[in-house]
Amino acid sequence: MKRFIVLLTDFGNDFYVGQMKGVIKNINEKVEIIDLCHNIQPQNILQASVIIDSSYKFFPAGSIFVCVVDPGVGSKRDILIVRFNKYIFISPNNGLLTKIIQTNNVEVFKVVNTKYFLKPLSNTFHGRDIMSPIAAYLSKGLDINKIATKIDESSIVKIDIPIPKKRFHKDYEVYIGKYLFHDSFGNIVTNLTDDLIRESDLDNYFLKISCKNKIWKIKMKKFYSEVREKEILGYVNSFGYIEVAVNKSSAYALFTSVAPITKFSFNLIYEKK
Amino acid sequence: MKRFIVLLTDFGNDFYVGQMKGVIKNINEKVEIIDLCHNIQPQNILQASVIIDSSYKFFPAGSIFVCVVDPGVGSKRDILIVRFNKYIFISPNNGLLTKIIQTNNVEVFKVVNTKYFLKPLSNTFHGRDIMSPIAAYLSKGLDINKIATKIDESSIVKIDIPIPKKRFHKDYEVYIGKYLFHDSFGNIVTNLTDDLIRESDLDNYFLKISCKNKIWKIKMKKFYSEVREKEILGYVNSFGYIEVAVNKSSAYALFTSVAPITKFSFNLIYEKK
Amino acid sequence: MKRFIVLLTDFGNDFYVGQMKGVIKNINEKVEIIDLCHNIQPQNILQASVIIDSSYKFFPAGSIFVCVVDPGVGSKRDILIVRFNKYIFISPNNGLLTKIIQTNNVEVFKVVNTKYFLKPLSNTFHGRDIMSPIAAYLSKGLDINKIATKIDESSIVKIDIPIPKKRFHKDYEVYIGKYLFHDSFGNIVTNLTDDLIRESDLDNYFLKISCKNKIWKIKMKKFYSEVREKEILGYVNSFGYIEVAVNKSSAYALFTSVAPITKFSFNLIYEKK
Repeated sequence: MKRFIVLLTDFGNDFYVGQMKGVIKNINEKVEIIDLCHNIQPQNILQASVIIDSSYKFFPAGSIFVCVVDPGVGSKRDILIVRFNKYIFISPNNGLLTKIIQTNNVEVFKVVNTKYFLKPLSNTFHGRDIMSPIAAYLSKGLDINKIATKIDESSIVKIDIPIPKKRFHKDYEVYIGKYLFHDSFGNIVTNLTDDLIRESDLDNYFLKISCKNKIWKIKMKKFYSEVREKEILGYVNSFGYIEVAVNKSSAYALFTSVAPITKFSFNLIYEKK
Repeated sequence: MKRFIVLLTDFGNDFYVGQMKGVIKNINEKVEIIDLCHNIQPQNILQASVIIDSSYKFFPAGSIFVCVVDPGVGSKRDILIVRFNKYIFISPNNGLLTKIIQTNNVEVFKVVNTKYFLKPLSNTFHGRDIMSPIAAYLSKGLDINKIATKIDESSIVKIDIPIPKKRFHKDYEVYIGKYLFHDSFGNIVTNLTDDLIRESDLDNYFLKISCKNKIWKIKMKKFYSEVREKEILGYVNSFGYIEVAVNKSSAYALFTSVAPITKFSFNLIYEKK
Repeated sequence: MKRFIVLLTDFGNDFYVGQMKGVIKNINEKVEIIDLCHNIQPQNILQASVIIDSSYKFFPAGSIFVCVVDPGVGSKRDILIVRFNKYIFISPNNGLLTKIIQTNNVEVFKVVNTKYFLKPLSNTFHGRDIMSPIAAYLSKGLDINKIATKIDESSIVKIDIPIPKKRFHKDYEVYIGKYLFHDSFGNIVTNLTDDLIRESDLDNYFLKISCKNKIWKIKMKKFYSEVREKEILGYVNSFGYIEVAVNKSSAYALFTSVAPITKFSFNLIYEKK
């Protein structure tokens, strides 16, 4: 089985990613490295948590994911190794793997053996000095138990991933949604998910987007070109979240010209007919 | 023959590119993936068209180019497969391959067999769900005819790539040029091309750049350091287009401090001596 | 021995990097290409010089580094090949390799044989047309002496890498530091280095950051989370330089709201107790 190491970080375009690749190749020249993405907003563990959960299943069994969003680097926080099916995830114990751990039958380990760390060990770049070498040695077949020890569910840090609240009325249902993050097109990913919507009944759903005394009532569609250019639409995106876009423009730019994006609410409404 | 899959998208630094790579590797773990670029301006089919046409020839024979600038994703638009020499191009039927098709002796197919699509198929990410798996299966040697059927020239969407107009005077010739796109240095690529210029006669050419009542008369040079720092120059760029730069600074920043870049004209003038 | 070609450029996200990879693979389909980084500030040779010097040692022996920050492209400036231990560096002769050359026992060559250049040779993209093919042929085992000839130390262009000045007082020592560059977190790398500091004695050091009549007196710490959110700290970074950050925010944004970053001084002070 060919092994892949997949990287997700908040390092942007900086050379830190290149250094990690050097470290990995220096240990296992044969493993193939794939960039999942490096544009996580600095320290945004929630965004990283959603993206890794939405992406891992597209990669070959055996893939090792190195997830470095690590504001606590240098402190006593543990480095976790999480395993299920044939996937392995390496990350600081800061909640980044919350969704992975909550929705799968996982084994969770914490790194205890410093033998495989890069020396000298820096205080501010454990992505390079700890997580990269561990991924490289695991990709060579090293037994996890030589590096790490199983830990209790209770020791695992979890973050709050906001769940949409429901409000039921006589004639309609409302799901109170929030901004999660946006992509480089300016499309806005909310915490509303596809299980809240019946696609066969799409015409009865709309989004009520509001901020201060401004309100937009938006139709749910399947794809961008169903609306005119510059028109707003809602849709279930390619990883199962309800997203808001402006056809051939940026929803993020539109809304942030009114107020900071976190001030908006994104409510999914189902009208009974 | 080793196979390469080369990616060109407008996905910026987002994780969409990483997901495409996962899908490809899941089907063919041996194929090598190369990023051509992902910073096409959102939905800018013209820019993508020029860049793929200017770049494919640098890649090994057998390369499969996956070109995803796809504002019509989810609609009925076809997915094309274009073949010539030993190159293969996969793209939505939206004009992205106009230059490739117009200047080569190509075979053009449209995808008709949904068997190789990712399931479930999303409505908004056919780069991942259709084009990536097709590229991966082709890279494993699958016959195009198992996936796609030849189509008529008349069914292929073409975009207008603006051609410089000529005006001949007694003492000089003028080629009326336009902005095409700019790069991360702020160098401006025009639609003027190297066939309009005789390099041996470079001193007789200049660029007249104008917007509103502002005019710049610029010398044609061979390379940046022929002019002083912060001075504007014109030159034939590395892929055969006439480009405008400011030595050690940004022409794009300079001009857009006056007006939006699309308001400028870039005229190549040849003075008979 | 597996060969790696490692790329460092100021090309940002542009397709120029993709074209270089195509050229390399067209010559040696087996060599593996790794991106160190492409976000060097345009024409910033000093930044590239520090980053290549701080990064090469993480890569496998045998790696070939192609370093393209090349404002003099097209002029008569030479292309250098520098070799030491089992590393090879290819770069314009513009000072980019200053730190590599000054701190190692190197052999320095200049390229003289045009046989391996891409034809036709452009005037503005020698990263693609000269440095990429040379790296590719060297990775296939071609003898450097077939391409290049040894040159004198005196012909090598060097840049001034600013060295912190020392001032000794009765009760304290001062090292006068400067801004070098910043990363995508907004962390500021200074020219102060870890040899100026005894980690065991960290409590006696602080940074005096000043600009105009504003002064910040900052504690030296080991890692970010030792200070509160939004608090400034100094620390030795992961490649041996003293860096200034704001915990979970951007030091660069903070300081540049006061004045351009190059107007600031970053002084390391040791107080004798």
